[in-house]
Amino acid sequence: MTNNVKLIEVGPRDGLQNESSILPLEVKVKFIELLVDAGFRTIEPTSFVRAEKIPQMADSHALFQSILRHEEAIFPALVPNKKGFDNSLKAGAKWIAIFTATSNTFNKKNTNASIEESLKRFEEFVPDAISEGQTVRGYVSTVFGCPYEGESSTDELLRVCEKLFKLGVNEISLGDTVGVGHPYQVKEIISAVKKNFGLDKIAMHFHDTEGMALANIYTSYEEGVRAFDSSAAGLGGCPYAHGASGNVASDDVVNMFHKMGIDTGIDAEKLHIASKYILESIGKSSNSKYFNAKEGRK
Amino acid sequence: MTNNVKLIEVGPRDGLQNESSILPLEVKVKFIELLVDAGFRTIEPTSFVRAEKIPQMADSHALFQSILRHEEAIFPALVPNKKGFDNSLKAGAKWIAIFTATSNTFNKKNTNASIEESLKRFEEFVPDAISEGQTVRGYVSTVFGCPYEGESSTDELLRVCEKLFKLGVNEISLGDTVGVGHPYQVKEIISAVKKNFGLDKIAMHFHDTEGMALANIYTSYEEGVRAFDSSAAGLGGCPYAHGASGNVASDDVVNMFHKMGIDTGIDAEKLHIASKYILESIGKSSNSKYFNAKEGRK
Repeated sequence: MTNNVKLIEVGPRDGLQNESSILPLEVKVKFIELLVDAGFRTIEPTSFVRAEKIPQMADSHALFQSILRHEEAIFPALVPNKKGFDNSLKAGAKWIAIFTATSNTFNKKNTNASIEESLKRFEEFVPDAISEGQTVRGYVSTVFGCPYEGESSTDELLRVCEKLFKLGVNEISLGDTVGVGHPYQVKEIISAVKKNFGLDKIAMHFHDTEGMALANIYTSYEEGVRAFDSSAAGLGGCPYAHGASGNVASDDVVNMFHKMGIDTGIDAEKLHIASKYILESIGKSSNSKYFNAKEGRK
Repeated sequence: MTNNVKLIEVGPRDGLQNESSILPLEVKVKFIELLVDAGFRTIEPTSFVRAEKIPQMADSHALFQSILRHEEAIFPALVPNKKGFDNSLKAGAKWIAIFTATSNTFNKKNTNASIEESLKRFEEFVPDAISEGQTVRGYVSTVFGCPYEGESSTDELLRVCEKLFKLGVNEISLGDTVGVGHPYQVKEIISAVKKNFGLDKIAMHFHDTEGMALANIYTSYEEGVRAFDSSAAGLGGCPYAHGASGNVASDDVVNMFHKMGIDTGIDAEKLHIASKYILESIGKSSNSKYFNAKEGRK
């Protein structure tokens, strides 16, 4: 097992999608290029959804056309259904990402489908995607708790993972959507997942809503996980608590791993530049304590 | 070994001492009383230093007189020297706290004394304090790194701890003054300390400057530490990085431990009230991600 970790940068999609002001295409492209330059090799750039639903992602076709020449990086396109998948194909995406949850209530609110219905939707295009040589990433939300249903079920998580792996999904990202997971829960869930599927195809996706993301990432690492989703500058708030942190900041994750002597492949200085660029572009301050400390030391 | 932890609340002293506007005595007293009501049984209320040096602490005598009737709590008075100790005695303090560091440069800047000189100063009053029935807490700063000298020496830490324990110090708090410690370093340092002195008389004092405080606290707990310093609402910025977090927020620490099923003796709702009260009194926002998430969910 390698000591190094792989970071999956989700800022351009998961971070920006809730920004109310629409960013110009060239800003998004430059942000992604700064992230590639910083060393990220998997970056979720956009989603293929109805433009009226998420206006920020309306330029996904043009965005893909602009970034595909960066062949050193993988750009999984988030697709909710067959229509989105078809559009992602037309734009040239070679990786797609699909998403479901362990909570029916959450999944219905998020995708207008029960867990079973979302798994059925996937059957409509995931086998096609794979036979066309695409690679598929799967997100499972509410793994550590649900804003509507409360505690989550590990049995349901294992069942959903089983289905996704059977569909041919290449990597599953386990999401702490509400940011309420704690280290002992992390240990317990990862241990169950490891026993059933190993950890080679598992990534963790923590939100820093209650400040526990780094503790959870450290715990996951010690349990054997080597892939983590994060967002430059901590882009993306928590939709369930106004003004609270959402995605854990790539800046904080990179800093902790590097201090621990663990390689992430990321140049921290260049990541700082990318984070600063996008913060200035959206006119916001960062949720990353490391980013803010670094700025404050100048 | 107990599973429960003891939290030492340092907000009233360490958190407020750098506030430029002088708070009225009654606000400080009310804050401390709210903390007692929330369940804190060790609260550092003030320091006995020259009023012209730290004007916020000029009312320490009157403050002590106002809080001593709360006999359920221990109030260690921070004293830099014999003069401060004498004044703390006059005010009725039954616990004192003394402080030194593992970095000479830091200690000179902080106390105008080398490490050796500070240890000599302690000999002038700590034995007296103990023979008068007082209990003495010792702080060691820069354990995980120094803003001036860089990395810290574990050998120097062990030497300083040895001296403090020989002086009769009852508990030593190991401070990550700059907030740069990481979980592997925590493991290494605690392991060395444990081997030499055990952990019964060791507390950890983390700053959340780079967002790693909870990861470090979790790691310390797993290594066997059961006492942690923290500050309500995360009061007290980092003097080495403008606008960055300083002391880890009691709110975040309590939340993580309670989620993990570990008792702290603190009522989280009442702590939230205390945090909110002091934030409103100083007109600042919180560095505590949990506090902010809780406010945002309302």
